[in-house]
Amino acid sequence: MSKLRVAILGFGTVGQGVYRILNERQHEIEEATGYVVEVVKILVKDPTKKRPATRGVVFIDTMEAIWSDPKIDVIFEAIVGEEPARSYLSKAINKRIHVVTANKEMFAKHGEDLLQQAQLHNVQVGYEATTAGGVPIIRTITNLQPTDSIRSIRGILNGTSNYILTKMREEGVPFKAALHEAQTLGYAEADPTDDISGRDAFRKLMILSALAFGEQPNWSDVPVAGITNVMTDDVNAAAKAKLRYRHIAEIIKDEKGHIQGVVKPTLIGPDHPLYAVDGVENAIIIDTVHLGLLTLIGPGAGMYPTGSAMVGDFLHIIGKSSKVLVRQ
Amino acid sequence: MSKLRVAILGFGTVGQGVYRILNERQHEIEEATGYVVEVVKILVKDPTKKRPATRGVVFIDTMEAIWSDPKIDVIFEAIVGEEPARSYLSKAINKRIHVVTANKEMFAKHGEDLLQQAQLHNVQVGYEATTAGGVPIIRTITNLQPTDSIRSIRGILNGTSNYILTKMREEGVPFKAALHEAQTLGYAEADPTDDISGRDAFRKLMILSALAFGEQPNWSDVPVAGITNVMTDDVNAAAKAKLRYRHIAEIIKDEKGHIQGVVKPTLIGPDHPLYAVDGVENAIIIDTVHLGLLTLIGPGAGMYPTGSAMVGDFLHIIGKSSKVLVRQ
Repeated sequence: MSKLRVAILGFGTVGQGVYRILNERQHEIEEATGYVVEVVKILVKDPTKKRPATRGVVFIDTMEAIWSDPKIDVIFEAIVGEEPARSYLSKAINKRIHVVTANKEMFAKHGEDLLQQAQLHNVQVGYEATTAGGVPIIRTITNLQPTDSIRSIRGILNGTSNYILTKMREEGVPFKAALHEAQTLGYAEADPTDDISGRDAFRKLMILSALAFGEQPNWSDVPVAGITNVMTDDVNAAAKAKLRYRHIAEIIKDEKGHIQGVVKPTLIGPDHPLYAVDGVENAIIIDTVHLGLLTLIGPGAGMYPTGSAMVGDFLHIIGKSSKVLVRQ
Repeated sequence: MSKLRVAILGFGTVGQGVYRILNERQHEIEEATGYVVEVVKILVKDPTKKRPATRGVVFIDTMEAIWSDPKIDVIFEAIVGEEPARSYLSKAINKRIHVVTANKEMFAKHGEDLLQQAQLHNVQVGYEATTAGGVPIIRTITNLQPTDSIRSIRGILNGTSNYILTKMREEGVPFKAALHEAQTLGYAEADPTDDISGRDAFRKLMILSALAFGEQPNWSDVPVAGITNVMTDDVNAAAKAKLRYRHIAEIIKDEKGHIQGVVKPTLIGPDHPLYAVDGVENAIIIDTVHLGLLTLIGPGAGMYPTGSAMVGDFLHIIGKSSKVLVRQ
């Protein structure tokens, strides 16, 4: 059976998720693809750190070990921040290595360039995990596109904000206590600024805009409000009126072709499809010409949801690119 | 540019949807696939009947015109009932023609055989449109499978029943009046027995069982109740208690590997993900080991939703089978 050799950049929650799924589902992946997949190199900050057993893997702390290896077929990128992630992926694409990324910060800004570059080099870029974690929103929109036209996309794209709003409503706790609980449970980052300011949801919205409409609005034209100004009293008063706050990001292409986005807390009632979406879940409503509304709801983060989104991209790439992958 | 020649069996709502989308989206399909798609033959009962303009199409009333044509690449099957649909598709597969079907009655019973046969002949079978119309449930489950394990699937699989229950609640009308309105609007068939008896939802559930678990339970072991016994008084009393009736089909694989299904009207509250799913919509909740719950909600029927599901299958087949399709 042919072998595929892959590298993972970053070994935090997401990188470990990819590694575990590739190992735990080895048999199923072989059956589905005909390939034995081997994780050969993992980029980390400190290769000497003690880690769970990872048979056959070499931990590295510089990309040289990857660039000098002519037999890496696919790179999984699970690091945080724009750089050096963008440079790594750009170089990988130039070397005709397929890439799969979960890096929303990087991809919101540089995704369109990377995709163009990839097309030029006949390489695939998977980015399902950048937006809404385990919810297959990128694949679903991609599949719809040749037969349908998207009018708008709106949804809950930041699970941390939704978790905090849910806690505030269910337990009457103030924002700070709910945030603290989100951090304790590992839902929010040590620095949760991007989550609660709406910046994280905004980035995902820009990724969806580029995919659905082929372009993004000017970032400075999109009003972005987070949940920091939602008070416990507001939440309680709303709950009494059977209303709920949801942090909703929305992007619309109007009839003149203008793209307009907005990110803000919004009050909704029991008949709204996002009313029942509590906790860390993400939810996206796509409005298309042929389907009307299509709604997807599921886990927006987590080791296994995000990992399986990335491995799903990988399997899609293998299916699309068997010729590119079979190296001499 | 290479040409693909396709035939459509049946020219009712679904067949016309396929035809229209293939024509209206010709340019986008060419861009996405590199193929010019031409509908060359359409099987109908009466080829002499007056129809909307269909340039270049030959209407036929016997399959001979298709079997004798060595250049048909894909057959879209949009007729009703087990036979002759099953025989047609089986013969097409034997002749190494790819098939796309929307026929749930036929596919629930014969789908597993047809898929096996197709594998033998290296041919693809698309059946997204058999279950939940424009909701991409078949593709979503298929994509999940190599990396994840499904524990259960439940949802609203019959839009007519859901429409009737919604009308009864919203307008306080009796079952018969709501059914009549569903028929007037074209949601229910002239003979709505399969819809309101739960039979239609059951069939879709069996298709999902075969896909998710590799097998179906014994059909006679699955309790199936429709909505005919739900009274207006029940619906009103429930509504007062903020509860709603939904007609839910559910299939579970338990820890011992037993598969258990049930189809019946169920009372749910505002925190249930199906609470807000009103009208003719379909909704499916997949419970998996890695994702937890993934919910998809959208149009369960209709010319364009079902047609675009079938054309979506077709595009997927083209992507998978370029070698098979490029004929000399």
